[in-house]
Amino acid sequence: MEKMGLISMELKPYLYERISLVESELEKIMPSEDIYPSVIHKAMRYSLFAGGKRLRPILCLAAAEAVGQKYESLLPVACALEMLHTYSLIHDDLPAMDNDDYRRGKLTNHKIYGEGISVLAGDALLTYAFEILSRFSENYSDKQSALQVMSEIANSIGTMGMIGGQVVDIQSEGKNIAIDKKCLTYVHTHKTGALFRVALRAGAILSSAKTKDLENLTIYAEKFGLAFQITDDILDVIGEEDKLGKSVGSDAKNYKATYPALYGLDESKQLAQQAINEAIEALKCLSGYVLPLELMVRYLYSRES
Amino acid sequence: MEKMGLISMELKPYLYERISLVESELEKIMPSEDIYPSVIHKAMRYSLFAGGKRLRPILCLAAAEAVGQKYESLLPVACALEMLHTYSLIHDDLPAMDNDDYRRGKLTNHKIYGEGISVLAGDALLTYAFEILSRFSENYSDKQSALQVMSEIANSIGTMGMIGGQVVDIQSEGKNIAIDKKCLTYVHTHKTGALFRVALRAGAILSSAKTKDLENLTIYAEKFGLAFQITDDILDVIGEEDKLGKSVGSDAKNYKATYPALYGLDESKQLAQQAINEAIEALKCLSGYVLPLELMVRYLYSRES
Repeated sequence: MEKMGLISMELKPYLYERISLVESELEKIMPSEDIYPSVIHKAMRYSLFAGGKRLRPILCLAAAEAVGQKYESLLPVACALEMLHTYSLIHDDLPAMDNDDYRRGKLTNHKIYGEGISVLAGDALLTYAFEILSRFSENYSDKQSALQVMSEIANSIGTMGMIGGQVVDIQSEGKNIAIDKKCLTYVHTHKTGALFRVALRAGAILSSAKTKDLENLTIYAEKFGLAFQITDDILDVIGEEDKLGKSVGSDAKNYKATYPALYGLDESKQLAQQAINEAIEALKCLSGYVLPLELMVRYLYSRES
Repeated sequence: MEKMGLISMELKPYLYERISLVESELEKIMPSEDIYPSVIHKAMRYSLFAGGKRLRPILCLAAAEAVGQKYESLLPVACALEMLHTYSLIHDDLPAMDNDDYRRGKLTNHKIYGEGISVLAGDALLTYAFEILSRFSENYSDKQSALQVMSEIANSIGTMGMIGGQVVDIQSEGKNIAIDKKCLTYVHTHKTGALFRVALRAGAILSSAKTKDLENLTIYAEKFGLAFQITDDILDVIGEEDKLGKSVGSDAKNYKATYPALYGLDESKQLAQQAINEAIEALKCLSGYVLPLELMVRYLYSRES
């Protein structure tokens, strides 16, 4: 724990600086609340500025640094990733899906704006992310790489990625039976993992990363996603409600398959630690500044929310 | 009427040929139903192949011909426009929005697949449209134009376009009062007009249209959209249910503002005819094959569904 504390002390200022950078950019590029029709812009901003950890944009920027490049010009891409993540949360929380009233300790989007506007706010964030990506690409010198990133992002959040994961997740819930390990892996690598993966790949590809570096960052991303999901599941069992901003044990209540449920708590912790070690191993051959990526994946093991 | 009959005889084979072309391409590029997770691909295909008139893709291809270019290579873009249109219909029909049980005489998506999968099927069509557009652009020689098209499309279907129109539409419905003329114009130009407009512009821009030609096609598109909406409203008052595939008078029942309600039936017909004349006028300076665009906008006046 003392070691974790030390790591946290190094990581905190870095994360705060990056969160602030991402949020300033989001503030700048999002339509303001008074633009007609006002309610949709309010609804989009409500969830976008609801205290997210900005992990995906930060990982995207950190990937650029890890291959020795500047990250500043990639901020619009980083913000687009956060919009996509937020859209998925708004739609996941809908009564027709997970039916959640709270997220991060705040009322969910549809509890404030109603279901109709919530569906549209999610749609609008998804759409605006591609507008931002297109505009970024119009001004980016290497258009082939920018377009590769755009099609990889679209693929990662479609039916072969995030949406596919959500489909299998809500379908297994409906059955009131716990899903098996294969299905659990499918849901996690698709629902959560795919966006983490493309966040790091986007940062690397737009930094002209060498093939080997891109491969290593992809491995890091996959292991990060796995460790994130296992520790997320563990928190749902042993976490503190006020730090999580949602009810502890809600996954079990909803018959959601989790790592602790299928592997037990001890083996889950071991699996998380193993994924973290493998993620760090993948960083070893990179020539840029990899410390933030190492600290971020280490942090997953000790996180409280 | 005899004249309309003649026009129809010219237009029909053209439309059938184009519909068949668009549907073959859609069949080719859409994930097949047996790809895991099967239910989402079934739901996407259910609405995509539910008998749409394919107006937006056909207009996109016709714009290329109108400036003297080949249209075949633009088929993926045309299909992406149809996916975007279909996504908007699936979400509009949801209980939280218009709550429609039937569209084109068939049960709506959520009546078959449930609300959760329907939200995701809409999301997936929206996402896949951008994947197709990105992949098209990766292989298209003039990447700057392809990216301009992509950002125009995203803008046209976002909160400054289609979603904006839908927001104002559902908000005015909730109030149970008829909206005024200014508001009616806003809803129609945004909810329906914006996608028609960008469909034609996309075809023209990707055919390297001269500035003046692009301007004229934009005017045509705006007038087409207006004539489409007025005649759509008129059909809701005087149409035949079995041809429409939905209940006649449903707009009035839902307190929807329509042209006949705000302008009267006779003036609405005059406004439609005027828009059609202006659309045809805009085609006069174009050097390519404009007959299909002329026939299509003329057809709006005599359509029965």
